[in-house]
Amino acid sequence: MTVSKTAEKAVDAAKGRKEPPEVQPEALQLGELSEQLGYVLKRAQLKVFENFLRCMASLQLTPAQFSVLLLVDKNPGRNQTEIASTLGILRPNFVAMLDNLESRDLCARIRSTNDRRSHILVLTDKGKAVLTRAKKLVATKHESRLNELLGQSNREALIGMLSKIANEF
Amino acid sequence: MTVSKTAEKAVDAAKGRKEPPEVQPEALQLGELSEQLGYVLKRAQLKVFENFLRCMASLQLTPAQFSVLLLVDKNPGRNQTEIASTLGILRPNFVAMLDNLESRDLCARIRSTNDRRSHILVLTDKGKAVLTRAKKLVATKHESRLNELLGQSNREALIGMLSKIANEF
Repeated sequence: MTVSKTAEKAVDAAKGRKEPPEVQPEALQLGELSEQLGYVLKRAQLKVFENFLRCMASLQLTPAQFSVLLLVDKNPGRNQTEIASTLGILRPNFVAMLDNLESRDLCARIRSTNDRRSHILVLTDKGKAVLTRAKKLVATKHESRLNELLGQSNREALIGMLSKIANEF
Repeated sequence: MTVSKTAEKAVDAAKGRKEPPEVQPEALQLGELSEQLGYVLKRAQLKVFENFLRCMASLQLTPAQFSVLLLVDKNPGRNQTEIASTLGILRPNFVAMLDNLESRDLCARIRSTNDRRSHILVLTDKGKAVLTRAKKLVATKHESRLNELLGQSNREALIGMLSKIANEF
Protein backbone atom coordinates (compact mmCIF):
# COMPACT_ATOMS: atom_id res chain seq x y z
CA MET A 1 0.00 0.00 0.00
CA THR A 2 1.44 3.37 -1.05
CA VAL A 3 1.54 6.47 1.11
CA SER A 4 -1.07 8.25 -1.02
CA LYS A 5 -3.37 5.26 -0.62
CA THR A 6 -3.01 5.46 3.13
CA ALA A 7 -3.72 9.19 2.99
CA GLU A 8 -6.88 8.54 0.96
CA LYS A 9 -8.03 6.01 3.52
CA ALA A 10 -7.48 8.53 6.30
CA VAL A 11 -9.66 11.04 4.42
CA ASP A 12 -12.34 8.39 3.95
CA ALA A 13 -12.20 7.51 7.63
CA ALA A 14 -12.42 11.18 8.58
CA LYS A 15 -15.51 11.57 6.39
CA GLY A 16 -17.02 8.57 8.14
CA ARG A 17 -17.11 6.34 5.05
CA LYS A 18 -17.46 2.67 5.85
CA GLU A 19 -15.17 0.01 4.40
CA PRO A 20 -13.60 2.04 1.57
CA PRO A 21 -12.82 -0.20 -1.42
CA GLU A 22 -9.05 -0.63 -1.56
CA VAL A 23 -7.70 0.15 -5.01
CA GLN A 24 -4.44 -1.65 -5.69
CA PRO A 25 -1.27 0.05 -6.89
CA GLU A 26 -1.12 -2.48 -9.74
CA ALA A 27 -4.46 -3.97 -10.66
CA LEU A 28 -4.58 -7.75 -10.66
CA GLN A 29 -5.40 -9.73 -13.78
CA LEU A 30 -8.98 -10.95 -13.47
CA GLY A 31 -8.54 -13.41 -16.34
CA GLU A 32 -11.48 -15.81 -16.74
CA LEU A 33 -13.15 -14.33 -13.67
CA SER A 34 -14.39 -11.34 -15.66
CA GLU A 35 -16.36 -13.75 -17.87
CA GLN A 36 -17.94 -15.73 -15.02
CA LEU A 37 -21.57 -14.74 -14.87
CA GLY A 38 -21.84 -15.47 -11.13
CA TYR A 39 -18.93 -13.16 -10.41
CA VAL A 40 -20.12 -10.18 -12.47
CA LEU A 41 -23.68 -10.67 -11.21
CA LYS A 42 -22.50 -10.47 -7.61
CA ARG A 43 -20.30 -7.44 -8.22
CA ALA A 44 -23.09 -5.60 -10.04
CA GLN A 45 -25.60 -6.53 -7.35
CA LEU A 46 -23.35 -5.21 -4.56
CA LYS A 47 -22.84 -1.94 -6.47
CA VAL A 48 -26.56 -1.49 -7.06
CA PHE A 49 -27.36 -2.25 -3.40
CA GLU A 50 -24.70 0.22 -2.18
CA ASN A 51 -26.19 2.93 -4.36
CA PHE A 52 -29.70 2.03 -3.20
CA LEU A 53 -28.66 2.37 0.45
CA ARG A 54 -27.07 5.76 -0.22
CA CYS A 55 -30.17 7.02 -2.04
CA MET A 56 -32.38 5.74 0.76
CA ALA A 57 -30.25 6.98 3.66
CA SER A 58 -32.85 9.55 4.76
CA LEU A 59 -35.50 6.83 5.05
CA GLN A 60 -33.20 4.11 6.42
CA LEU A 61 -34.63 1.39 4.16
CA THR A 62 -32.67 -1.59 2.86
CA PRO A 63 -33.47 -3.11 -0.55
CA ALA A 64 -35.15 -6.08 1.18
CA GLN A 65 -37.26 -3.83 3.42
CA PHE A 66 -38.33 -1.78 0.40
CA SER A 67 -39.34 -5.01 -1.37
CA VAL A 68 -41.45 -6.08 1.61
CA LEU A 69 -43.24 -2.71 1.77
CA LEU A 70 -43.91 -2.77 -2.00
CA LEU A 71 -45.20 -6.34 -1.90
CA VAL A 72 -47.42 -5.87 1.16
CA ASP A 73 -48.86 -2.69 -0.34
CA LYS A 74 -49.60 -4.50 -3.63
CA ASN A 75 -51.06 -7.57 -1.88
CA PRO A 76 -53.03 -6.48 1.17
CA GLY A 77 -54.35 -9.27 3.38
CA ARG A 78 -51.77 -11.90 2.38
CA ASN A 79 -49.97 -13.66 5.15
CA GLN A 80 -46.42 -13.50 6.43
CA THR A 81 -45.44 -16.87 4.92
CA GLU A 82 -46.66 -15.89 1.46
CA ILE A 83 -44.77 -12.60 1.47
CA ALA A 84 -41.55 -14.22 2.74
CA SER A 85 -41.60 -17.10 0.28
CA THR A 86 -42.42 -14.84 -2.69
CA LEU A 87 -39.35 -12.78 -1.84
CA GLY A 88 -37.23 -15.84 -1.09
CA ILE A 89 -36.47 -14.64 2.44
CA LEU A 90 -35.91 -17.33 5.07
CA ARG A 91 -38.33 -17.35 8.00
CA PRO A 92 -35.92 -16.27 10.82
CA ASN A 93 -34.57 -13.40 8.72
CA PHE A 94 -38.07 -12.35 7.78
CA VAL A 95 -39.29 -12.35 11.37
CA ALA A 96 -36.34 -10.14 12.37
CA MET A 97 -37.11 -7.79 9.49
CA LEU A 98 -40.78 -7.53 10.46
CA ASP A 99 -39.81 -6.85 14.08
CA ASN A 100 -37.76 -3.93 12.80
CA LEU A 101 -40.46 -2.58 10.46
CA GLU A 102 -43.10 -2.94 13.16
CA SER A 103 -40.93 -1.17 15.78
CA ARG A 104 -40.72 1.76 13.33
CA ASP A 105 -44.51 1.69 12.88
CA LEU A 106 -44.22 0.94 9.14
CA CYS A 107 -46.19 -2.30 9.09
CA ALA A 108 -48.33 -4.43 11.38
CA ARG A 109 -48.97 -8.15 11.82
CA ILE A 110 -52.62 -9.05 12.38
CA ARG A 111 -53.67 -12.53 13.43
CA SER A 112 -55.67 -14.12 10.61
CA THR A 113 -59.34 -14.84 11.41
CA ASN A 114 -59.31 -17.84 8.98
CA ASP A 115 -56.17 -19.43 10.36
CA ARG A 116 -55.23 -18.41 13.89
CA ARG A 117 -51.66 -19.63 13.36
CA SER A 118 -50.92 -17.20 10.54
CA HIS A 119 -50.40 -13.46 10.46
CA ILE A 120 -51.66 -11.11 7.81
CA LEU A 121 -49.44 -8.16 6.95
CA VAL A 122 -50.62 -4.62 6.39
CA LEU A 123 -48.89 -1.27 6.00
CA THR A 124 -49.63 1.39 8.59
CA ASP A 125 -50.45 4.93 7.45
CA LYS A 126 -46.86 5.87 8.22
CA GLY A 127 -45.68 2.82 6.22
CA LYS A 128 -47.73 3.95 3.21
CA ALA A 129 -46.33 7.48 3.44
CA VAL A 130 -42.75 6.21 3.73
CA LEU A 131 -43.28 3.87 0.78
CA THR A 132 -44.52 6.76 -1.37
CA ARG A 133 -41.42 8.80 -0.51
CA ALA A 134 -39.18 5.76 -1.05
CA LYS A 135 -40.62 5.09 -4.51
CA LYS A 136 -39.96 8.70 -5.49
CA LEU A 137 -36.35 8.52 -4.24
CA VAL A 138 -35.75 5.22 -6.04
CA ALA A 139 -37.16 6.58 -9.30
CA THR A 140 -35.36 9.93 -9.24
CA LYS A 141 -32.02 9.03 -7.67
CA HIS A 142 -31.46 5.32 -8.25
CA GLU A 143 -33.26 3.95 -11.30
CA SER A 144 -32.77 7.17 -13.27
CA ARG A 145 -29.01 6.88 -12.82
CA LEU A 146 -29.19 3.36 -14.17
CA ASN A 147 -31.08 4.59 -17.22
CA GLU A 148 -28.36 7.17 -17.82
CA LEU A 149 -25.67 4.51 -17.57
CA LEU A 150 -27.29 1.87 -19.79
CA GLY A 151 -29.97 3.66 -21.78
CA GLN A 152 -33.65 2.76 -21.52
CA SER A 153 -33.72 -0.07 -24.07
CA ASN A 154 -30.59 -1.76 -22.72
CA ARG A 155 -32.01 -1.49 -19.23
CA GLU A 156 -35.16 -3.27 -20.34
CA ALA A 157 -33.14 -5.97 -22.09
CA LEU A 158 -31.09 -6.44 -18.91
CA ILE A 159 -34.18 -6.77 -16.70
CA GLY A 160 -35.62 -9.26 -19.21
CA MET A 161 -32.52 -11.48 -19.20
CA LEU A 162 -32.17 -11.36 -15.41
CA SER A 163 -35.84 -12.29 -14.97
CA LYS A 164 -35.36 -15.19 -17.37
CA ILE A 165 -32.42 -16.42 -15.30
CA ALA A 166 -34.33 -15.95 -12.03
CA ASN A 167 -37.32 -17.90 -13.36
CA GLU A 168 -35.82 -20.54 -15.63
CA PHE A 169 -32.21 -21.23 -14.69
CA MET B 1 -52.18 -22.69 3.33
CA THR B 2 -54.29 -25.45 1.76
CA VAL B 3 -54.33 -29.08 2.86
CA SER B 4 -52.57 -30.24 -0.31
CA LYS B 5 -49.79 -27.71 0.38
CA THR B 6 -49.37 -29.16 3.87
CA ALA B 7 -49.29 -32.66 2.41
CA GLU B 8 -46.62 -31.63 -0.09
CA LYS B 9 -44.51 -30.18 2.72
CA ALA B 10 -44.84 -33.41 4.68
CA VAL B 11 -43.59 -35.34 1.64
CA ASP B 12 -40.68 -32.93 1.28
CA ALA B 13 -39.86 -33.27 4.96
CA ALA B 14 -40.03 -37.07 4.73
CA LYS B 15 -37.60 -36.97 1.78
CA GLY B 16 -35.26 -34.82 3.85
CA ARG B 17 -35.39 -31.79 1.55
CA LYS B 18 -34.10 -28.62 3.13
CA GLU B 19 -36.17 -25.43 3.11
CA PRO B 20 -38.44 -26.41 0.22
CA PRO B 21 -39.47 -23.34 -1.79
CA GLU B 22 -43.09 -22.72 -0.86
CA VAL B 23 -45.20 -22.25 -3.95
CA GLN B 24 -48.28 -20.21 -3.16
CA PRO B 25 -51.80 -21.31 -4.05
CA GLU B 26 -52.33 -17.90 -5.66
CA ALA B 27 -49.18 -16.13 -6.77
CA LEU B 28 -48.77 -12.63 -5.38
CA GLN B 29 -48.68 -9.59 -7.64
CA LEU B 30 -45.08 -8.41 -7.86
CA GLY B 31 -46.11 -5.07 -9.33
CA GLU B 32 -43.24 -2.57 -9.58
CA LEU B 33 -40.91 -5.02 -7.86
CA SER B 34 -40.40 -6.98 -11.09
CA GLU B 35 -38.96 -3.82 -12.67
CA GLN B 36 -36.56 -2.98 -9.82
CA LEU B 37 -33.08 -3.77 -11.02
CA GLY B 38 -31.79 -4.51 -7.50
CA TYR B 39 -34.53 -7.06 -6.96
CA VAL B 40 -34.09 -8.97 -10.23
CA LEU B 41 -30.31 -8.81 -9.89
CA LYS B 42 -30.49 -10.42 -6.46
CA ARG B 43 -32.95 -13.12 -7.57
CA ALA B 44 -30.83 -13.96 -10.62
CA GLN B 45 -27.64 -14.00 -8.56
CA LEU B 46 -29.14 -16.40 -5.99
CA LYS B 47 -30.32 -18.71 -8.79
CA VAL B 48 -26.91 -18.70 -10.48
CA PHE B 49 -25.12 -19.35 -7.16
CA GLU B 50 -27.50 -22.24 -6.31
CA ASN B 51 -26.78 -23.83 -9.68
CA PHE B 52 -23.05 -23.24 -9.25
CA LEU B 53 -23.09 -25.01 -5.86
CA ARG B 54 -24.98 -27.98 -7.33
CA CYS B 55 -22.55 -28.27 -10.26
CA MET B 56 -19.61 -28.02 -7.87
CA ALA B 57 -20.94 -30.41 -5.21
CA SER B 58 -18.28 -33.04 -5.91
CA LEU B 59 -15.50 -30.49 -5.32
CA GLN B 60 -17.20 -28.62 -2.46
CA LEU B 61 -16.30 -25.19 -3.80
CA THR B 62 -18.39 -22.06 -3.30
CA PRO B 63 -18.45 -19.31 -5.95
CA ALA B 64 -16.22 -17.13 -3.73
CA GLN B 65 -13.70 -19.95 -3.16
CA PHE B 66 -13.59 -20.63 -6.90
CA SER B 67 -12.93 -16.91 -7.51
CA VAL B 68 -10.05 -16.94 -5.04
CA LEU B 69 -8.45 -19.99 -6.64
CA LEU B 70 -8.81 -18.46 -10.13
CA LEU B 71 -7.36 -15.13 -9.04
CA VAL B 72 -4.43 -16.60 -7.09
CA ASP B 73 -3.61 -18.88 -10.02
CA LYS B 74 -3.68 -15.92 -12.43
CA ASN B 75 -1.67 -13.64 -10.09
CA PRO B 76 0.99 -15.68 -8.33
CA GLY B 77 2.99 -13.85 -5.65
CA ARG B 78 0.35 -11.20 -4.87
CA ASN B 79 -0.55 -10.74 -1.26
CA GLN B 80 -3.62 -11.59 0.76
CA THR B 81 -4.84 -7.96 0.97
CA GLU B 82 -4.62 -7.49 -2.79
CA ILE B 83 -6.58 -10.65 -3.54
CA ALA B 84 -9.26 -9.83 -0.93
CA SER B 85 -9.75 -6.25 -2.03
CA THR B 86 -9.85 -7.15 -5.74
CA LEU B 87 -12.67 -9.58 -4.96
CA GLY B 88 -14.36 -7.15 -2.58
CA ILE B 89 -14.21 -9.65 0.29
CA LEU B 90 -13.93 -8.20 3.79
CA ARG B 91 -10.83 -9.14 5.76
CA PRO B 92 -12.41 -11.33 8.49
CA ASN B 93 -14.42 -13.28 5.89
CA PHE B 94 -11.35 -13.68 3.72
CA VAL B 95 -9.21 -14.98 6.60
CA ALA B 96 -11.90 -17.57 7.41
CA MET B 97 -12.04 -18.61 3.77
CA LEU B 98 -8.26 -18.99 3.56
CA ASP B 99 -8.26 -21.05 6.75
CA ASN B 100 -10.73 -23.38 5.05
CA LEU B 101 -8.81 -23.58 1.73
CA GLU B 102 -5.52 -24.12 3.57
CA SER B 103 -7.00 -26.87 5.78
CA ARG B 104 -8.00 -28.66 2.56
CA ASP B 105 -4.47 -28.20 1.18
CA LEU B 106 -5.73 -26.09 -1.77
CA CYS B 107 -3.69 -22.97 -1.10
CA ALA B 108 -0.90 -21.76 1.17
CA ARG B 109 0.01 -18.44 2.82
CA ILE B 110 3.70 -17.57 2.69
CA ARG B 111 5.14 -14.68 4.67
CA SER B 112 6.40 -12.03 2.25
CA THR B 113 10.16 -11.43 2.27
CA ASN B 114 9.61 -7.75 1.26
CA ASP B 115 7.03 -7.00 3.89
CA ARG B 116 7.04 -9.32 6.89
CA ARG B 117 3.51 -8.23 7.84
CA SER B 118 1.94 -9.45 4.60
CA HIS B 119 1.27 -12.92 3.26
CA ILE B 120 1.66 -14.02 -0.32
CA LEU B 121 -0.83 -16.56 -1.61
CA VAL B 122 -0.02 -19.55 -3.78
CA LEU B 123 -1.95 -22.59 -4.94
CA THR B 124 -0.70 -25.98 -3.87
CA ASP B 125 -0.38 -28.78 -6.44
CA LYS B 126 -3.67 -30.14 -5.16
CA GLY B 127 -5.19 -26.65 -5.45
CA LYS B 128 -4.07 -26.43 -9.09
CA ALA B 129 -5.54 -29.86 -9.86
CA VAL B 130 -8.85 -29.00 -8.18
CA LEU B 131 -9.01 -25.69 -10.05
CA THR B 132 -8.54 -27.47 -13.37
CA ARG B 133 -11.40 -29.86 -12.58
CA ALA B 134 -13.54 -26.99 -11.29
CA LYS B 135 -13.03 -24.97 -14.49
CA LYS B 136 -14.14 -27.95 -16.54
CA LEU B 137 -17.26 -28.46 -14.40
CA VAL B 138 -18.15 -24.77 -14.58
CA ALA B 139 -17.74 -24.70 -18.36
CA THR B 140 -19.63 -27.92 -19.12
CA LYS B 141 -22.37 -27.87 -16.49
CA HIS B 142 -22.88 -24.26 -15.43
CA GLU B 143 -21.87 -21.73 -18.08
CA SER B 144 -23.05 -23.97 -20.93
CA ARG B 145 -26.53 -24.08 -19.43
CA LEU B 146 -26.55 -20.31 -19.33
CA ASN B 147 -25.60 -20.19 -23.00
CA GLU B 148 -28.51 -22.48 -23.78
CA LEU B 149 -30.90 -20.28 -21.84
CA LEU B 150 -29.79 -16.90 -23.23
CA GLY B 151 -27.85 -17.64 -26.39
CA GLN B 152 -24.18 -16.73 -26.82
CA SER B 153 -24.64 -13.15 -28.00
CA ASN B 154 -27.20 -12.27 -25.33
CA ARG B 155 -24.92 -13.77 -22.73
CA GLU B 156 -22.08 -11.53 -23.88
CA ALA B 157 -24.35 -8.48 -23.84
CA LEU B 158 -25.45 -9.38 -20.31
CA ILE B 159 -21.87 -9.74 -19.05
CA GLY B 160 -21.01 -6.41 -20.70
CA MET B 161 -23.88 -4.55 -19.03
CA LEU B 162 -23.21 -6.11 -15.62
CA SER B 163 -19.51 -5.22 -15.85
CA LYS B 164 -20.47 -1.65 -16.75
CA ILE B 165 -22.68 -1.47 -13.66
CA ALA B 166 -20.00 -3.03 -11.45
CA ASN B 167 -17.36 -0.57 -12.69
CA GLU B 168 -19.26 2.65 -13.29
CA PHE B 169 -22.45 2.76 -11.25
